[in-house]
This record gives sequence, C-alpha cells and structure tokens, in this order.
Amino acid sequence: MPGSAVSPGPVAVDTMGGDHAPDEIIAGAVTAVREHDVRLILVGQAPRIKQQLDRLGVAGQIPIAHADEALAMDEGALASRRKPRSSVAIACRLIRQNRASALVSAGTTAGVVATSRLRLRGQHGVTRPAIAVVLPTRPRPTVLLDAGATADVKPETLVQFAALGTAYAQVRHGVDRPRVGLLTIGAEPGKGNKLIRRAHELLTAAPPGIEFVGNIEGDDLLGGKVDVVVTDGFTGNVALKTIEGSVRLALAEVEAAIGSSRRARMGAAMQRRPLRELRDRLDSGTYGGGVLLGLNGTVVIAHGASNAKAITSACVLAHDLVRGNIVERIREQVAAARPPRFGRRHGDRDHPAPERDEPPSAD
Amino acid sequence: MPGSAVSPGPVAVDTMGGDHAPDEIIAGAVTAVREHDVRLILVGQAPRIKQQLDRLGVAGQIPIAHADEALAMDEGALASRRKPRSSVAIACRLIRQNRASALVSAGTTAGVVATSRLRLRGQHGVTRPAIAVVLPTRPRPTVLLDAGATADVKPETLVQFAALGTAYAQVRHGVDRPRVGLLTIGAEPGKGNKLIRRAHELLTAAPPGIEFVGNIEGDDLLGGKVDVVVTDGFTGNVALKTIEGSVRLALAEVEAAIGSSRRARMGAAMQRRPLRELRDRLDSGTYGGGVLLGLNGTVVIAHGASNAKAITSACVLAHDLVRGNIVERIREQVAAARPPRFGRRHGDRDHPAPERDEPPSAD
Repeated sequence: MPGSAVSPGPVAVDTMGGDHAPDEIIAGAVTAVREHDVRLILVGQAPRIKQQLDRLGVAGQIPIAHADEALAMDEGALASRRKPRSSVAIACRLIRQNRASALVSAGTTAGVVATSRLRLRGQHGVTRPAIAVVLPTRPRPTVLLDAGATADVKPETLVQFAALGTAYAQVRHGVDRPRVGLLTIGAEPGKGNKLIRRAHELLTAAPPGIEFVGNIEGDDLLGGKVDVVVTDGFTGNVALKTIEGSVRLALAEVEAAIGSSRRARMGAAMQRRPLRELRDRLDSGTYGGGVLLGLNGTVVIAHGASNAKAITSACVLAHDLVRGNIVERIREQVAAARPPRFGRRHGDRDHPAPERDEPPSAD
Repeated sequence: MPGSAVSPGPVAVDTMGGDHAPDEIIAGAVTAVREHDVRLILVGQAPRIKQQLDRLGVAGQIPIAHADEALAMDEGALASRRKPRSSVAIACRLIRQNRASALVSAGTTAGVVATSRLRLRGQHGVTRPAIAVVLPTRPRPTVLLDAGATADVKPETLVQFAALGTAYAQVRHGVDRPRVGLLTIGAEPGKGNKLIRRAHELLTAAPPGIEFVGNIEGDDLLGGKVDVVVTDGFTGNVALKTIEGSVRLALAEVEAAIGSSRRARMGAAMQRRPLRELRDRLDSGTYGGGVLLGLNGTVVIAHGASNAKAITSACVLAHDLVRGNIVERIREQVAAARPPRFGRRHGDRDHPAPERDEPPSAD
C-alpha cells in the first residue's frame, strides 16, 4: 500500500447488505485491496467473514468489525432506531470515531439512507442529503441528484443539491466548473411546477461557485449536455428508474427483432459480442448505485444486485472520493453558495466573488 | 360516409399547428376522410387550404372554417387571451356551438392546453384536465396520465385522473375494468412524496369504478403491468420524455455497436428491416401525441413533428373517441368516484356499490 503523510482511514464495507451478501461482497472487497491498494475494514458477522477470507487466501490480512444484524431488504426509515447494532450502524460508528473514512453498502437504499443520516448527521450547512448517480451518457458523464434520498424538498434545498453535485463532479470527474441543469418540463424559465420555478429563480441569481445553465428536459437527461442535473428525490428516482426500464425494454425489443427471421438471426450471431458489451454498459447493475452526499462521511450505496466486480468498483470509488476530500469540497461549495443573509463566511474560500455580495435578486 | 341515426359532429382539424403545417396536416386529414370515413372540418387560412385540397383532388369536398392566426410554437398559457382568433380558438368555438365534436392539433402543447381549457372549460366535476398518452408496452397498452397538462395538483385531483384514465382505457382499448397504478418511488404503500402518499390513501379507499392495484415504479412503467398509470403532470412529463430520450439513446447505441466491426456490420445488413420497424414502433412520433381529457370536448394533441400519417391516426382517434362517447364516460366515472360527502349521484350509475357508501377511511 502506498504510504502518504496523512493517510485517510480505511473504507468500511458492509458485508451483510445486498442480494449476494456476504460472499460476493467480501470477494469484491478483497479484490479492491489486492488490485487497487484500497484500505478496508469489513463489517459483519466475524466468523463468517474469517471463513471467507480464509477461503480466499487472505486470512488475517483485512481488519474486521463484528456486527450481529443486517438491515432487512424491506426495512425503511425506522430500521435505524430499531437496529443500533446493524452492520451499517456499526460502520457509521467507525466513521464517527475516525476509525473509518467511508462506508460501502449494497443494502436497501432506504435503510442505508435512514441509518447513515441518523448516525452521521448532515454536514455543517447541509439541511438534506442527496443521492448522486452517474448516468450512462457519452462522451461526458452526467451526475443526477437527488436520485431518491429526499422526496419532499424546498427550492433552497435544490440550490444546495447544485452545490453538492458541483463538488461531486469536480472530485469524481475532474471537471473544473461543472455545468448544472435543472430537470423540468420545458426549456423556458417559466416552465415546471412551483418548486422548480422558484428553484430556477434562485439558481439564476447565480450563487457563487455554481455554473447554472438552465432547464433540462427528460429527453435530454441522457444527452450529455450538462455535468450535473439537479432535481428532487421523487422526480429523480422516477427518472432514474424510468431510464432503467426503458433501456431494458429497448434492448429486449432489439433482441426480439434481430431474432425475428432466419436472415436476421444469422446477423445476430455476428453481433453477440458488441450487443453484450452494450448491455453491460447500459445495465443499471454496472452504472447503478449512488453516493449519498451531504453527511459527515462518504456513503457509497451499491446496487442491491451487486456482484463482486460491482463491489470492487464501489470500494475504489469510496477510496477515490475520500482522497479527493469530497466532504471538505462539499463544505466549501455549500458555504460559498449560501446567500449572505445566512451569514456566509468568506475566509475559507479560495476564490471570493465580491460582485456577488448583493443579496440574490428574485425577479 | 356511413349514415347513422345521431351522427356526431365532424372533427375540427387545426391546419396551422405543427412543424409541417399546413400541407402535411391537410394531406393527413384528407386520407382520414378518404380511407377511414371520418367527417372533418379544416380550420385555418381558407385560401391556402382550398389550394391544397385542389391539389389533392378533393376541392369542395371538405368544409373549411377560416382562421387568421396560428399559436406560435413558443407561446404558452397566455396565448389564448392574446389570440381569440387563432385556429385552435376557432376550433374550440365550433365545438361549443356543436358544429364540431372534437379538435385535432399538432400545435404547441402548452398553447393547445391553455386555449382549449379556457374555451371549452372543464367538464362538470373535473377540476383539472390531464393529458393521456399511450406507452409502447406489450402485449397490452398502458395509458399514462397526466403527461403534462397540470404540473401542481392535489391528491384529490389524482383520484380524478384515475377516473379519467379508467374511462379512456375503456373507450380506447376496450378494457372492461382497467387496472390503475400510481407512479411513485417504491412498491410499498408508504413510499413517495407527500402528494403521492395521500393519493395512495384516497385510492386505497377504493372509489367506485376505479380498480386501484397499488404503486408502480419507474422501471415498471413499460412493463405492461397495469392499464392506467396515474401521476401529476410534472412527474408524468419528465417520465414520458425520459422514456423518449432513453429509447433513442439505446437504439443509437445499438446501431453504433452493430456497426463496430466488419463481422458485426455484415450482420447488421441482415437486420435492417426488423430494426427499422422497431424504431418506428418505439418512436415517439408514432406513439407520441396525447389526448386532453376532462374538458367539454375531445382534444387530440398530435406530436409537433407529425407527418401526414400521424395526423390521419390522430383524426381517426378523435373520431373513435367521439363515437365511444368519451366525454359522457368520463362524466359517469368522475361522478361515481367522487366521495359521498361531495354529493355523489347514484341515479346515473349502472353498478351502484352500496358497500362503499361509508366515507373513505384515511388510515
């Protein structure tokens, strides 16, 4: 493992969440350690984890934190209070104690969000967390948030989400000034529902650090026109799942179409490989999973159906976000974007924007 | 044209709306008359319409109502008051005067909705209109509403939309008891935002005539699990456009994938036809367009990019809906579904449901 002056804590991996827990989770984590130099701590039933590490030939090489219980797949927001000793709760405690820097879980989204929200608490200045997902756009990726953490929001919360998404695109995709769009139902400023119209006004007032470029409609979500798309957690989740269902339908129909005649079937045989690669790329199991932003700690929520490969990716992502100081970057972005009337601090910004010192106009 | 005892009025066709107005619109309308026995009246600039009818060899065979102005493509809700002599406004006047039974327009959705809402007014008992679209599901079609007429709604409005959609699925698709789902972000009853959770309670109380089967997530929108999906106009429009964008992306990626190697390209040549048919089927220009439900008159909003073929389909659809007494069916459904405390009338229902006479519980 590469030495560094101040090494961030290890990534805590919840071995009890997901359809293929714990074996695939542990296998994926081990690959992250072996091939990507990621420091980890495995959280879950210690005897079971030891057994699997033994089988994989790395007995004693990865630290373990014991947890008795998993969040059940059908548990929601109340799970956290009921299960203070769940693997996710234990992982959050490690983060609070500075014994871990991030959490990776393939557990149920609602349970992971509720538990980590309760136990990690929101970062200073962040009133609601958001789940960021990366859409399969080309050539540049687009970050969509919120994909489902907070269903009912205020317009001001959407401005915060813009700050979270900006920090995320900077750290994850290396975009210097990410272009931010607002998901709505028409290109013109006056389009949308009340929430979105007001959020548009606030974003048009150009909060420092946020490069707002206007409205994005559903049919442009995958057009790669912006780096960040902001929406509430209800609309964002509907949109994300609609993408998944639509792509699945389209590819299934393609398979049916190219199997529809002898001539077409012969053609299909020649295309098996490119089509399989395409399915992998558009498959939600690959691009799926999200990062819960805005808490005192980084939380990567892997897809429930994650296999070992997806878990390895999630561990590497958590590691990269921690090294990119995502929590600190969010703190800076949110502090910068906050209107002066809430007492914005100037001292901790690299690029003060004095021309923005007037209160944002709401015309 | 086949004679009938009480013939409904002709369908008024707006020849001035859409990317290909007026020639493609008129051509499509003429085909509807010639091949589908639809009675029409063409609304727009009379000299231009006459010229085109002459060119198509049907001079003097289709009635014309003159209008001076079109709704501009960028006009929204205020267009109607500004343009009382627009082709859409004139068509609405024909409906109010019982000289037409329905309107077909490929004009801008916002303009057509605003104009027809102002001039036709809501049906008795309907507080907000909704746009119904038919999703490209198989084997059975699914009606999604509202696809964008009303962005901010109350939970009670969603119950009304369920009634509108039920009537529509009965008349258009011949489904006796359409299964109705609520678009949200989780399968369990408690999932969603405040609006949807309350609407779920109201629908679970089983308003007579509505077969509510529970929540539908975005990834199941195209699964064909229900006959009707109810949502607000904001979420519905985002979902519909997201489907369009996702299908477009997936098919473009398929084309790129199957052209990615010499071997694959050879295969592609054998599949050109099935893939083209698939694209046509999933293309929003084919399934696109919607019907504005809940007003005193049937309004078919064709896709802005409609060609003659799409306009013919829209004319036939308007004709079929009028013959199926859609406005009357909606009146019955809405009256049935209305809670007793609002003074539901029993006299005009075929299947009274006395067990539902208690007020709906809201547990």
